[in-house]
Amino acid sequence: MLKTNHRTKTCGELTINDINEEVTLCGWLHKSRDLGGMTFIDIRDRYGITQLVFNMETNADICNKARSFGREYVIKATGIVAERSNKNLKIPTGEIEITVTDIEVLNVSKLPPFTIEENTDGGEEQRMKYRYLDLRRDNIRKNIELRHKMAQQTRIYLDGQAFIEVETPVLIKSTPEGARDFVVPSRMNQGEFYALPQSPQTFKQLLMVAGFDRYYQLVKCFRDEDLRADRQPEFTQIDCEMSFVQQEDILNMFEGLVKHLFKTVKGITIENLPRMTYDHAMKHYGNDKPDIRFEMKFVEMNELVKGKGFKVFDDAELIIGINVKGAADYTRKQLDELTDFVKRPQLGATGLIYMRHNTDGSLKSSVDKFYNEDELKNWSAAFNSSAGDLILVLAGNTDRIRKAMSELRLEMGNRMGLRDKDTYAPLWVLDFPLLEWNEDSKRWHAMHHPFTSPKPEDISYLNDVPGSVRANAYDMVINGVEVGGGSIRIHDKDLQKKMFQILGFTDEDAQAQFGFLMNAFEFGAPPHGGIAFGFDRLCSLFGGSDSIRDYIAFPKNNSGRDVMIDAPSPIAEEQLKELNIQLRSAK
Amino acid sequence: MLKTNHRTKTCGELTINDINEEVTLCGWLHKSRDLGGMTFIDIRDRYGITQLVFNMETNADICNKARSFGREYVIKATGIVAERSNKNLKIPTGEIEITVTDIEVLNVSKLPPFTIEENTDGGEEQRMKYRYLDLRRDNIRKNIELRHKMAQQTRIYLDGQAFIEVETPVLIKSTPEGARDFVVPSRMNQGEFYALPQSPQTFKQLLMVAGFDRYYQLVKCFRDEDLRADRQPEFTQIDCEMSFVQQEDILNMFEGLVKHLFKTVKGITIENLPRMTYDHAMKHYGNDKPDIRFEMKFVEMNELVKGKGFKVFDDAELIIGINVKGAADYTRKQLDELTDFVKRPQLGATGLIYMRHNTDGSLKSSVDKFYNEDELKNWSAAFNSSAGDLILVLAGNTDRIRKAMSELRLEMGNRMGLRDKDTYAPLWVLDFPLLEWNEDSKRWHAMHHPFTSPKPEDISYLNDVPGSVRANAYDMVINGVEVGGGSIRIHDKDLQKKMFQILGFTDEDAQAQFGFLMNAFEFGAPPHGGIAFGFDRLCSLFGGSDSIRDYIAFPKNNSGRDVMIDAPSPIAEEQLKELNIQLRSAK
Repeated sequence: MLKTNHRTKTCGELTINDINEEVTLCGWLHKSRDLGGMTFIDIRDRYGITQLVFNMETNADICNKARSFGREYVIKATGIVAERSNKNLKIPTGEIEITVTDIEVLNVSKLPPFTIEENTDGGEEQRMKYRYLDLRRDNIRKNIELRHKMAQQTRIYLDGQAFIEVETPVLIKSTPEGARDFVVPSRMNQGEFYALPQSPQTFKQLLMVAGFDRYYQLVKCFRDEDLRADRQPEFTQIDCEMSFVQQEDILNMFEGLVKHLFKTVKGITIENLPRMTYDHAMKHYGNDKPDIRFEMKFVEMNELVKGKGFKVFDDAELIIGINVKGAADYTRKQLDELTDFVKRPQLGATGLIYMRHNTDGSLKSSVDKFYNEDELKNWSAAFNSSAGDLILVLAGNTDRIRKAMSELRLEMGNRMGLRDKDTYAPLWVLDFPLLEWNEDSKRWHAMHHPFTSPKPEDISYLNDVPGSVRANAYDMVINGVEVGGGSIRIHDKDLQKKMFQILGFTDEDAQAQFGFLMNAFEFGAPPHGGIAFGFDRLCSLFGGSDSIRDYIAFPKNNSGRDVMIDAPSPIAEEQLKELNIQLRSAK
Repeated sequence: MLKTNHRTKTCGELTINDINEEVTLCGWLHKSRDLGGMTFIDIRDRYGITQLVFNMETNADICNKARSFGREYVIKATGIVAERSNKNLKIPTGEIEITVTDIEVLNVSKLPPFTIEENTDGGEEQRMKYRYLDLRRDNIRKNIELRHKMAQQTRIYLDGQAFIEVETPVLIKSTPEGARDFVVPSRMNQGEFYALPQSPQTFKQLLMVAGFDRYYQLVKCFRDEDLRADRQPEFTQIDCEMSFVQQEDILNMFEGLVKHLFKTVKGITIENLPRMTYDHAMKHYGNDKPDIRFEMKFVEMNELVKGKGFKVFDDAELIIGINVKGAADYTRKQLDELTDFVKRPQLGATGLIYMRHNTDGSLKSSVDKFYNEDELKNWSAAFNSSAGDLILVLAGNTDRIRKAMSELRLEMGNRMGLRDKDTYAPLWVLDFPLLEWNEDSKRWHAMHHPFTSPKPEDISYLNDVPGSVRANAYDMVINGVEVGGGSIRIHDKDLQKKMFQILGFTDEDAQAQFGFLMNAFEFGAPPHGGIAFGFDRLCSLFGGSDSIRDYIAFPKNNSGRDVMIDAPSPIAEEQLKELNIQLRSAK
């Protein structure tokens, strides 16, 4: 199947069973070694590496020719498959070599600016500039292959569940709600602009109105945001929507997808995919995307510690602790490090209190002045601590202290080796608040988006206590990373109208921006809901990496630049004129 | 599998085997008929239509309720499957009906602006504006389902041939060569612009340099061209590239794809997929995308007819005719119509000459004054005509007359019923010229694109007779429609440089626009080539339609507008400011 007019075999397929066969291989010169009378060349293609051998005694011409080739030359070698005397059992082709009878250079190569090896000597910037060389590296290519397999298996699962992949448009309409749009000036409609989609949200809802019942798409989305590390201006979603469903239907369907991907791509059976409410996650992990590969849950200590004269605790809104199993031997220096960690401005804790449950059974805290041994025994009981454990405690304002403790918990998880990247613990987080108060704009914002439905039993609170209304919204979290999220949508036009009012839209604004969706809802919208997964993130998670860039063939850097092709770039005045736009003077 | 918390079955699956089962269906009220004591409602979802029955005698409440529902209401009905007395064997569910015990309105609907039927009463503009209603029509939904199936089968075939689907970026760099780019102002790099890709051409070549060996992608591409009927500013390609291949490898691989699609999607076995050179196609069909569902090939008549005193022929560069089998009974009026047809300005022929081979065997031409019966016998022999045939002849400048005759041939094919849309005749057209002279710019243009390789045996003509150099380029043509095209690329940097010179690029221009590709070619580019298929067009062809819009879920109109969402549209001054651009004053 991989045979072409240039090659009979690839560099990854020959084994001991092919001895004496005449073959022609094509590929890149990976490595070359001269050993006196012999020269060995490793030839590499996407499928593997095969050793070519040249002998000065039997064929000096061809051996000399081979010796003149540099790294990354594209070569075509014909020869006979022979058994190797010095076998390399680490690679599939390691038992054979090719005794070359004819060799040809298909293309020369300058010396690459970095080595084409798993542990390359190339820096980030060089590798981005010469991405086509970086992609030759085995590990990077395997990432892209993993991505392909993830896409394949996603499609296989969803096709099997009667989803239809529908392409939604890329040139759409700008809506000020949400993140910033990339816009595209229209030449044919001057003074007007298309926007690139931040997601196909409204189109997939329209497909449900259209009766498509089950839709999906692996789709590029765009956000013109200031890029944090590992954000890309263009990214890919697995975007899905279903009709005539309730939340339970969506959870089951996409639990199925995640299990299918783990099974088929990683060979991992996910037995258990727990569900947790948002409130529970915040209380026990301080975080709406808890990493549940390890326990170390929050213990709330207010009743245990208040009223003993320790002002820090007495004044605190909330006191929480975690039990770090087996860390009682932490030194003063290590504890100081942790104190510095939680006092960093982004966490903002005022200090760290601890209690050691020593290996001799004794209990020793940093606040012994206020808490005697009996009281520490109560601490121990509350944390279910045993000899060798370390209790870490933070106190302060609820939101801030939960956030700080969440970070501390993850840090301790790392330090104690509890966050193995080959262990996967997915879960659903449910019952998110529908709205969150925004101090800057002094109005309620949709926590997911304005189309998310409130829980029916909470609708009556919408007017008076909007902050307490829960949404039919759910996130899929794996190992502390939110990989997907969605909701059951509003399908009733009156409720949708009310939501826009609560979010501070005038009727005119709502009509101007989402009129087409509201109009569609007049013509029989079915109950529907859906989800979107961040595909780049999901791939990097499956690949065991923190960097999504390694899973994108041609990523952009943190300034949104593609340094390989040098984009964006100035365009011709003529182009600007045709679009009837001009640059403003420099700021 | 299609069961949800709202429904137990879909509207397309119940048969006589389900009699007496209690079911719950959800869907749209398609039709309603009151027959005195009975009411029948057809409920519709993506999967089909099921008849609901309500009886005033047995359940007046529910029957009255049902009678109050309007068309396109979203309803949920529970009842018992019963055998129909009046069976409709045309639909899968036609033997049963549901005796409804409970019915609920999930959503109301205003009366749609047009009927949701295959033959709708909605005009084009209404249907575009309410596309979500248009998509409810069975035939339009089936088009989108066909498209999904085409995409699935394309992926199955290419995955099976070890192709990797790689996503290439959408925000790239503007290049003045080729069609006009859509551009995207960059906020983070002010004064600079991204461009949307007209195709992933350079990226797929870089993937070959990167050693990916076999790449494909179903990918959105963008061209800011003035839209002719059935052109869309955004369109989808099946984009492919392979390494270490020669033309023959590509032809075989994608012949395989086309056969696979016909087999799996249409159930048609393509036995024969002929190949034809460009020269042959031009000579015999006057067209580089010949419709070979029917013969009616051109016969060149210069030697046959010149020198007999007929000035039109004597002065003509080329005289060609076609034999329209069985059209000898064409009336004077019909022949006048054909004359008008070829004299239209876009064809520009000066007149039409004909010869009837009458059913009595006599030969009668419109130029009897110049050609006697013996000479007409020679015509008959040249065309292999028999009683009942009509020979149509045009004379003039080669290019123009071939084009006119090609149109006339297609017209006669239509009139004679030779272009059955359920018959498929794919072929390869090969050996295109590498370059074509452009009178406006007074320079050579690449017929495909600047990366197309010349045939090795023709390279020596590049300097002196560039117009005679043939390219390693090929088009896949089906029923007179070019559905795909590609080439073996240049992989040698010196040859690529020479090509840019011939195309009139300065070294600086070439470097500025394609520098990254030329640089990549310095580091070991393998021999490679590829193809791209127009996916929208391919789908419409498989669907038997001329309109690609019917195969796009949310198409744009001829002004590039999405009239449903009203895009493009003006954007806020604040957005323009952030991008550091402004509108020019109105022209």
